[in-house]
Amino acid sequence: MEKINEIKKLIENNLNDYIKTLRMFIKQPSISADGTGINKMAKMLKEEMNRVGINTCLLKPSSGGYPVVLGTIKNKKNNYTLLVYGHYDVHSIGNLEDWKFDPFSAEIVSDKIIGRGAADNKGNFLSWIKAIEVLKELGINIPINIIFFFEGEEEIGSPHLNIILNENKNLISEANSKIVFEPRQDSKGKAFINLGWKGMLSLKLTFKNRGGQIHASYGPLVSNPIFELVRAIKEITDGINIYLPGFYKSIAPLSPEERECLKNINWNENDIVKALSGEPLKYENLKGGKVIETLLSDPSITVSAISSGSVDPPVRSVIPESASCLIEFRLVLNQRCNEVYNSCVKLLNKLNSKCRFQLEILASSEATRTNVKHDFVNKVKKACNLTFGYKCDVYPNLQGTSPDHFFKSILDIPSVGCGCGYHHLCHRPNEFITISQFSKGIELATNIIMELSN
Amino acid sequence: MEKINEIKKLIENNLNDYIKTLRMFIKQPSISADGTGINKMAKMLKEEMNRVGINTCLLKPSSGGYPVVLGTIKNKKNNYTLLVYGHYDVHSIGNLEDWKFDPFSAEIVSDKIIGRGAADNKGNFLSWIKAIEVLKELGINIPINIIFFFEGEEEIGSPHLNIILNENKNLISEANSKIVFEPRQDSKGKAFINLGWKGMLSLKLTFKNRGGQIHASYGPLVSNPIFELVRAIKEITDGINIYLPGFYKSIAPLSPEERECLKNINWNENDIVKALSGEPLKYENLKGGKVIETLLSDPSITVSAISSGSVDPPVRSVIPESASCLIEFRLVLNQRCNEVYNSCVKLLNKLNSKCRFQLEILASSEATRTNVKHDFVNKVKKACNLTFGYKCDVYPNLQGTSPDHFFKSILDIPSVGCGCGYHHLCHRPNEFITISQFSKGIELATNIIMELSN
Repeated sequence: MEKINEIKKLIENNLNDYIKTLRMFIKQPSISADGTGINKMAKMLKEEMNRVGINTCLLKPSSGGYPVVLGTIKNKKNNYTLLVYGHYDVHSIGNLEDWKFDPFSAEIVSDKIIGRGAADNKGNFLSWIKAIEVLKELGINIPINIIFFFEGEEEIGSPHLNIILNENKNLISEANSKIVFEPRQDSKGKAFINLGWKGMLSLKLTFKNRGGQIHASYGPLVSNPIFELVRAIKEITDGINIYLPGFYKSIAPLSPEERECLKNINWNENDIVKALSGEPLKYENLKGGKVIETLLSDPSITVSAISSGSVDPPVRSVIPESASCLIEFRLVLNQRCNEVYNSCVKLLNKLNSKCRFQLEILASSEATRTNVKHDFVNKVKKACNLTFGYKCDVYPNLQGTSPDHFFKSILDIPSVGCGCGYHHLCHRPNEFITISQFSKGIELATNIIMELSN
Repeated sequence: MEKINEIKKLIENNLNDYIKTLRMFIKQPSISADGTGINKMAKMLKEEMNRVGINTCLLKPSSGGYPVVLGTIKNKKNNYTLLVYGHYDVHSIGNLEDWKFDPFSAEIVSDKIIGRGAADNKGNFLSWIKAIEVLKELGINIPINIIFFFEGEEEIGSPHLNIILNENKNLISEANSKIVFEPRQDSKGKAFINLGWKGMLSLKLTFKNRGGQIHASYGPLVSNPIFELVRAIKEITDGINIYLPGFYKSIAPLSPEERECLKNINWNENDIVKALSGEPLKYENLKGGKVIETLLSDPSITVSAISSGSVDPPVRSVIPESASCLIEFRLVLNQRCNEVYNSCVKLLNKLNSKCRFQLEILASSEATRTNVKHDFVNKVKKACNLTFGYKCDVYPNLQGTSPDHFFKSILDIPSVGCGCGYHHLCHRPNEFITISQFSKGIELATNIIMELSN
């Protein structure tokens, strides 16, 4: 207990310095979608890690792609190895006009550090580096082995992660457990941990006619790729139900313990409306605990983008040559990406469209879940409760995705998500982390380390 | 007959000069969608008209908008006045990559003059100016009064035409008939005239959520503006049928004479597939004469553009804040734009969407038709047959639209469309007019003038 107070005090004393590093990291753009600043950020992170005494190098997959920043801390007396996963890339900024400040200015307004990546994921992976710095400064020998695995392609679906993991199996094969450190505070600020992730299948669907762009007056006679795309989307889903044959069949039911976890989460319809800036629920009758159950347990589908012709400025009076959209499935345990893809192709073929379609896989990841009764889960829970001073929530899985399945296919180890910052602000404009959230993040990282040495 | 041969010979002798002027006109961009070069083109046209002795000025509506180039030729002995309508603006170029040459280079390849506006409408309105030049050079007094009305906003739906016509009624009130001179040769090169136009209602439909852009993982709980847009489009149409209540009810049936005209048009399913670069018909069983009947007599709907988020580069994992599309109805005689608009709003309200919708009118024009038995129709037909040396087709109306209804609301006069160049190439990349088409256009204009003096 004395140690814990020492740690808390040191974090408090050094916090201004830690914030400086965080702001430096935020100010360095690292957008994986277009590559902006990625390599600079990887180098900056490696240098910071080496500075605090984490033996760090850059791993590049033979197939190309942005490097993984890999750091290791060895303990000669303990075999236990924790793998800490994070990512130094950030999501695209979206519309610049939606930001109150330059997304890479790391502006501080009262207790908020604002910027793309502030919480997702720079404030989080930096918590671990600062945790190591704190422990070292206090003369505490890191009691376990740690592998830091910070990738640069998380926000684009980790397209090279599978290759890099397979090419460097030996570097991570010692791991006994895995922490994914990311924003895990709900819209009320309550901390939670998650034991799994949804899967995701991201597709680009294009319909193209044979005759190129055609004058709109030929509308009575020829097909329009936009109508074909609209028809295809409507055949796949009405925005609520997903009509692919067998889509819901393979879903793994929740265990009684998982149901119990869900029941204990106190997060209702008003919380989500508030979290989503007034966006109402699409179901009239979804209330109370059913909201979180639906969010975490139901698969879903989104069209993230759709495009054909020019709406603005309006280019009218044409039947466009092609129309495309990005379809994204969020899948739950036991639903497999390849089965969903095949099912889509089958349905699209059945449409018998005069236009030709193309269905391209942009990214895919499988759903995963760690058993709620695993000892590792208990230890992380304990560290969380200790850090935040209350019983944190346990989500059987997150509504979001993670490349957890790539690790799972190589390492059969438990995997838990936790961390600091508002989860619902990820990817939104004006993303921020509060100073106290960041400080709690560092504390949580030290507590997990200490807990795992017991 | 002697006169006609003289005219033909002079056109042949001077053709190289006329082509020079046409190329100069094509090289001057005049895109009404974004305003590029419009004012320069208006000035260039005015100067050319004054040069050949047409008394010409620029008319600007008090409400703003691009000028109408208005020219007059007076004949003291004859009261008969023909209004010649054309437009000096051109359609947007679309994708530059689809063009084999710079769309404003007016490249000549064998007998084709290639460029945006070559046929639609520069080669056509210039035919009339050159026709006047030819007649004057031959010492022939122009036997009728002519008002040349060349507007600069046809390709964007003539948004200021109604105002300009009402503000300048006196300048056109003498007109007894109206010629719309535009490409009127089918994909086999056969010339036709048209006695009417379809109406058009161009709408911009937008759905917007309340919460701004939302992370895709919230898909199980919140609406997606793209799905709402897709649902709305699907409720309005399946791309073939239009489901607005009462939409087909008011349609005026074809008269026996109009049916006869349709029957005489020898233009079938292969002709359209060829005209549209291999684009197949959307109906399996539409053959022969039924093709042209469907094209001309059926109302239709097109979505010219749809947009939300970013497909390329792909910005995934978001539920976008809003989604928009451009909907365009092509209406037939007696279907009214305001009724169709109201019907859309009613249907959209019934969707009861969680997202808010906005339905904006971008352009509208009503269908028109001139009686096939009118003497003016006969005279234009005769001039056409004489020019091309065969019996030209008569379309009761065109599949396309025209601001004809604005004139009709002020002047109750017959109105006929004819002209030179392939009709199906309008608005497409690599638009061209052949040298002989252009030459026939000049000849046709002189023949119409001579015919109307009888």
